[in-house]
Amino acid sequence: MEHRIKKLELMLKNDRFANHNDIRLISVGKGEAKAELVVSEKHLNGVDIIQGGALFTLADFAFAAASNSHGRIAVASNASINFFKGVSSGTLTAVASEINSGKSLSCYSVEISDENGVKIAQFNGTAFLKAEY
Amino acid sequence: MEHRIKKLELMLKNDRFANHNDIRLISVGKGEAKAELVVSEKHLNGVDIIQGGALFTLADFAFAAASNSHGRIAVASNASINFFKGVSSGTLTAVASEINSGKSLSCYSVEISDENGVKIAQFNGTAFLKAEY
Amino acid sequence: MEHRIKKLELMLKNDRFANHNDIRLISVGKGEAKAELVVSEKHLNGVDIIQGGALFTLADFAFAAASNSHGRIAVASNASINFFKGVSSGTLTAVASEINSGKSLSCYSVEISDENGVKIAQFNGTAFLKAEY
Amino acid sequence: MEHRIKKLELMLKNDRFANHNDIRLISVGKGEAKAELVVSEKHLNGVDIIQGGALFTLADFAFAAASNSHGRIAVASNASINFFKGVSSGTLTAVASEINSGKSLSCYSVEISDENGVKIAQFNGTAFLKAEY
Repeated sequence: MEHRIKKLELMLKNDRFANHNDIRLISVGKGEAKAELVVSEKHLNGVDIIQGGALFTLADFAFAAASNSHGRIAVASNASINFFKGVSSGTLTAVASEINSGKSLSCYSVEISDENGVKIAQFNGTAFLKAEY
Repeated sequence: MEHRIKKLELMLKNDRFANHNDIRLISVGKGEAKAELVVSEKHLNGVDIIQGGALFTLADFAFAAASNSHGRIAVASNASINFFKGVSSGTLTAVASEINSGKSLSCYSVEISDENGVKIAQFNGTAFLKAEY
Repeated sequence: MEHRIKKLELMLKNDRFANHNDIRLISVGKGEAKAELVVSEKHLNGVDIIQGGALFTLADFAFAAASNSHGRIAVASNASINFFKGVSSGTLTAVASEINSGKSLSCYSVEISDENGVKIAQFNGTAFLKAEY
Repeated sequence: MEHRIKKLELMLKNDRFANHNDIRLISVGKGEAKAELVVSEKHLNGVDIIQGGALFTLADFAFAAASNSHGRIAVASNASINFFKGVSSGTLTAVASEINSGKSLSCYSVEISDENGVKIAQFNGTAFLKAEY
């Protein structure tokens, strides 16, 4: 397993879209992961708050880490997100936890909050499970 | 109205997250919008296909344009996306159309397809309508 | 194929939850289906409008018909619904159409409208495809 | 508040669709609620497992109770559900808890499980908040 988590971490480090947008992995374990984003100018939309796509990407990255943590390739099939609060600065943390893991599909929730623990967004993702990696 | 579409276009041009990720507006009209992304290295995830967050951002940007096109500020409340096909290159187009527009909430669907019309992803967004702008 | 649509119609006729709630199939073809519900007292919630679950069931039944129409068993993996308008009477029609059909997953949208074509709700469903039936 | 919970309970007792389908409220408090369904013949679909609409209705009823528990009328704007396991009998319990409560919108998750605590489905709902009742 240890060996697989290493492989997974390498794969996540190679995520150029996450890198390009300052999203970084904090930790990954079986069925769980944490990622972080320090909000800066590049993440803002036309009305000076963080763009919904930046929040989605942060959550999706944590979801990808967690859903791939069982040794099988997990491909996102669909996801939904609720936006609660617009922020313009600060550090956001996304925590992914497993809701269910079946034979072919698994389901995760990801909560995004700021430094004070205020909820910023809630994400739910479903992954389709393929072969072992 | 013409005047408002101008204001909206300025606001959309100021979306730094869209700009940073090469997403650009093609057109916006009442209840509809089109946006485009030319896939490059920076959009790829760890397994060399476009990251889900890049697809979401493209759709969300078209959704923001369309949902704000009626002269009232529209804030995304929640959204969902289905991923159909992984791509690594090419030009993707997102077309947003209105499903319903109520007093306080409006609902849009956005279809993302490639140059050959192959569906890549389907997005649905709900916006909360605020004051006129 | 004709033979399979017959088998599918028998299966749908055996849906006791749909029967118990006056939901009936109008038509089913490849990747599409239509279902109907005449709103009565039994469908109402505590504030005298149709319960969200009744609308969901109507849409889900049309989705089940359409997603099973290709000769493979389709099991709902997840679904979402947007509610636009509360109604207390009349005939509601749900029309399911295919958004995408992949190797393992397919995606459908279902629109519910009243006799005047007013949109009441919009449903999206994802099905997991199993063996042929 | 006590007085309002009484009013809310009366309203929930008047939900004829829930009654017609054997769904009953177990408890309701501020931002939380529990509901129950004993699966019987009437809840089954054409392949003899509980219909998705029955699961949705159970979750939606718990969501309605919880989202209306703060003294303001809460109308469901949209909801999503993931289905994990098909069951044909037994007692199902839906537990609704608040994810977020804003000025105009609130967001709840509802978990459905069987007597052994096995997860059957996961629901997320967003409500639009209106005047006090």
